[in-house]
Amino acid sequence: MVQKKISQAVIRRLPRYYRYLRDLLDEGTERISSNELSARMKVTASQIRQDLNNFGGFGQQGYGYNVQYLYDEIGKILGLDCHHNIIVVGAGNMGQALANYVNFEKRGFIMTGLFDVNPDLIGKTIRGIPILHVDDLDTFLKEHDVDIAVLTLPKGEAESAAEKLVSLGIHAIWNFAHLDLNLPKDVVVENVHLSDSLMQLSYNIVKNKTNE
Amino acid sequence: MVQKKISQAVIRRLPRYYRYLRDLLDEGTERISSNELSARMKVTASQIRQDLNNFGGFGQQGYGYNVQYLYDEIGKILGLDCHHNIIVVGAGNMGQALANYVNFEKRGFIMTGLFDVNPDLIGKTIRGIPILHVDDLDTFLKEHDVDIAVLTLPKGEAESAAEKLVSLGIHAIWNFAHLDLNLPKDVVVENVHLSDSLMQLSYNIVKNKTNE
Repeated sequence: MVQKKISQAVIRRLPRYYRYLRDLLDEGTERISSNELSARMKVTASQIRQDLNNFGGFGQQGYGYNVQYLYDEIGKILGLDCHHNIIVVGAGNMGQALANYVNFEKRGFIMTGLFDVNPDLIGKTIRGIPILHVDDLDTFLKEHDVDIAVLTLPKGEAESAAEKLVSLGIHAIWNFAHLDLNLPKDVVVENVHLSDSLMQLSYNIVKNKTNE
Repeated sequence: MVQKKISQAVIRRLPRYYRYLRDLLDEGTERISSNELSARMKVTASQIRQDLNNFGGFGQQGYGYNVQYLYDEIGKILGLDCHHNIIVVGAGNMGQALANYVNFEKRGFIMTGLFDVNPDLIGKTIRGIPILHVDDLDTFLKEHDVDIAVLTLPKGEAESAAEKLVSLGIHAIWNFAHLDLNLPKDVVVENVHLSDSLMQLSYNIVKNKTNE
């Protein structure tokens, strides 16, 4: 495990490096120079060198980066060298779509259960993953190790559900509800605010038209 | 329309302001001070004053902001004062989930068609929105004004689909595929990289455990 402190700005860029390195591995590329990576990622070679210097151990200048080594090291930093068990709270369209993403599993994120209150959904399964009643959350979390709860509930129900999850021992929430959660500081929250993203797109469309 | 140039950093924060102002309107709040907004949004009052100064017209100090006026002005900046017609290319789980979000429609984003190659899906509808064959894209785009294409295709199919959409006149893409698109500069792309977001969460879980 790399011990050196890495800045938040670098950390935010790591998933993107990880994604490009995976593509290189899939193509059978063993080494890549910062210039070649720069051309692919459309980031300056200088930034790539600065970012990747944080991970060290890449041999001499002129030989480029060892793709597999870099991929593994970044994976460790991102916590992808161990499994994370996930539950989805809110088994509506978005919850089901996320449960259907097999790619998350390839990265070590294992979906173990979905929860809802809708009687039409309870008892069904998604890729073999059961949809249970939210009243069973308590028992389920006592019997299963769960690292991450995905919150795919309407805005009005999300805050109380998040508080309940935290009271049952959940420390990490992937929040798709359209609000900011107020939770204790030791709970990690990552937001996916789709409406915010769509508004950003809309802004850029207007700006683009104005510049024409 | 506000003419003053607004920095990208402020622009990125606007959807969040817009969301909080909508909540205030729904609660019947007509005016709010930067201090009250600061407490709700967990941003310093000084940053709020700086950000919102870009929009002017809020009366005297001590009276707070006119919520409706601010909401409307930010809406205009974000291009939410006009409708945007949307199509979804890739009518799998994620595409269907997005087509089911009625909240997008409330913000003026109107879903007009979904496209896929899967014969089991073609001919069906989602909330009355038809799922058509991708071969019909050409005709559909000739007959309908479409502002935004949502790309919810597997990685391997996304790049060529995006190029096709652009060749058919699409200038804005909301990209859910797990890759960065290489498109002409006049095409606006907003990415939702869910795996990147999940990796960020995973990183913060590991960091949180290390700090305990």
